[in-house]
Amino acid sequence: MNENVNEHAFDDAEKKGVYRAIHERRDVRKEFLPRKISRKILLKLLNAAHHAGSVGFMQPWNFIVIEDVKIKKKIKGVFVKENEKAKSNYSGKAKEMYGSFKLEGIEESPVNICITCDSSRGGKHVLGRNTIKETDMFSTCCAVQNLWLAARAEGIGVGWVSIINNGLLKKVLNMPKHIKPIAYLCLGYVSKFDKKPLLETSGWRKRMPLDELISWDSWDNMGLKEI
Amino acid sequence: MNENVNEHAFDDAEKKGVYRAIHERRDVRKEFLPRKISRKILLKLLNAAHHAGSVGFMQPWNFIVIEDVKIKKKIKGVFVKENEKAKSNYSGKAKEMYGSFKLEGIEESPVNICITCDSSRGGKHVLGRNTIKETDMFSTCCAVQNLWLAARAEGIGVGWVSIINNGLLKKVLNMPKHIKPIAYLCLGYVSKFDKKPLLETSGWRKRMPLDELISWDSWDNMGLKEI
Repeated sequence: MNENVNEHAFDDAEKKGVYRAIHERRDVRKEFLPRKISRKILLKLLNAAHHAGSVGFMQPWNFIVIEDVKIKKKIKGVFVKENEKAKSNYSGKAKEMYGSFKLEGIEESPVNICITCDSSRGGKHVLGRNTIKETDMFSTCCAVQNLWLAARAEGIGVGWVSIINNGLLKKVLNMPKHIKPIAYLCLGYVSKFDKKPLLETSGWRKRMPLDELISWDSWDNMGLKEI
Repeated sequence: MNENVNEHAFDDAEKKGVYRAIHERRDVRKEFLPRKISRKILLKLLNAAHHAGSVGFMQPWNFIVIEDVKIKKKIKGVFVKENEKAKSNYSGKAKEMYGSFKLEGIEESPVNICITCDSSRGGKHVLGRNTIKETDMFSTCCAVQNLWLAARAEGIGVGWVSIINNGLLKKVLNMPKHIKPIAYLCLGYVSKFDKKPLLETSGWRKRMPLDELISWDSWDNMGLKEI
């Protein structure tokens, strides 16, 4: 059977869009332009996030959109403090390299979005979340990826700031105790999208060969011949 | 400035592909066809997963591809046991409704994939993973979503089985102690993709209005007028 004949498959241009978004998505830190993102496009991106699958259809996410420069400044402060701690883990050349990386674009990007997870949503027994409680966070991450890919299609760069103290972040954004921040994202139009991840081109780490990550029917059966 | 003029944005057909994948992706359980997935397409999907961003470029994922019917049968057993427990949380009409849902397609789908997370990859200090240790799992979930969307573009359905005991699953798949299963996925061509999630059409839960999930600059500032 011809693998291209499938009534549910997308046409070539649509497929190309999906694979381009996946392969040309970057974690953007320093290429942000001040140009505003329209409300219409912003809502399209949030709606893309909202259409991720979620365990038991619990839709555990909320979206805090941050545009206020005073709030951004406070959050930048949270990052700076945490990044000093992180930097102290390295020494020598690695420390120097670490210091040269720009790891956030909080103030330069016109829009920040904090995507959160509410574990209480959907009541006590969420369908499918009986055994693995973290599935609500997993669903929220799928929402993050939807937004990231939709943004790439719109020519908007997204950077995920992972060096942040969630306790302090929650205070700045007035979040209730039971809400967990999952992703703090910086969004904006960009001067360029790098061809490869910065940590790859800088030599920090290599992309692993895909075939070293695949096994067959069992963890230890790498069986390269099967590829 | 015309929001459509942006050299980095995709053209309309490619954008449509991205949004179609996001909005037409479904969690598939019962529509699987026996038709095989070619190695070429399977590798395209795994490569899409492998191109998710990851904290510190740690690429913490592995992919165990399960096609052996004996292994699938064992894993189905793990699901059945766990699902009995889950079902016991409900009573009355909800229990009846729960029992009517098909919540996995382990044996019907030609390919199962277990996507795992290796927290030890990248050494002791992974860049960007100083504060929030779970970011390795979050990265792995982004990889899951990439695969899910790429599969949709190929006309391939994916179902995430969340009702599973990870300890037993690890035994069946010979996984080392430090490896954490994140997603157990069932893949295959399908007779149809539902227009909406089953839990929505069945009346189990409603899709929340997007504007109830957005706030501005602070958790408690819903400010609908801003939309």
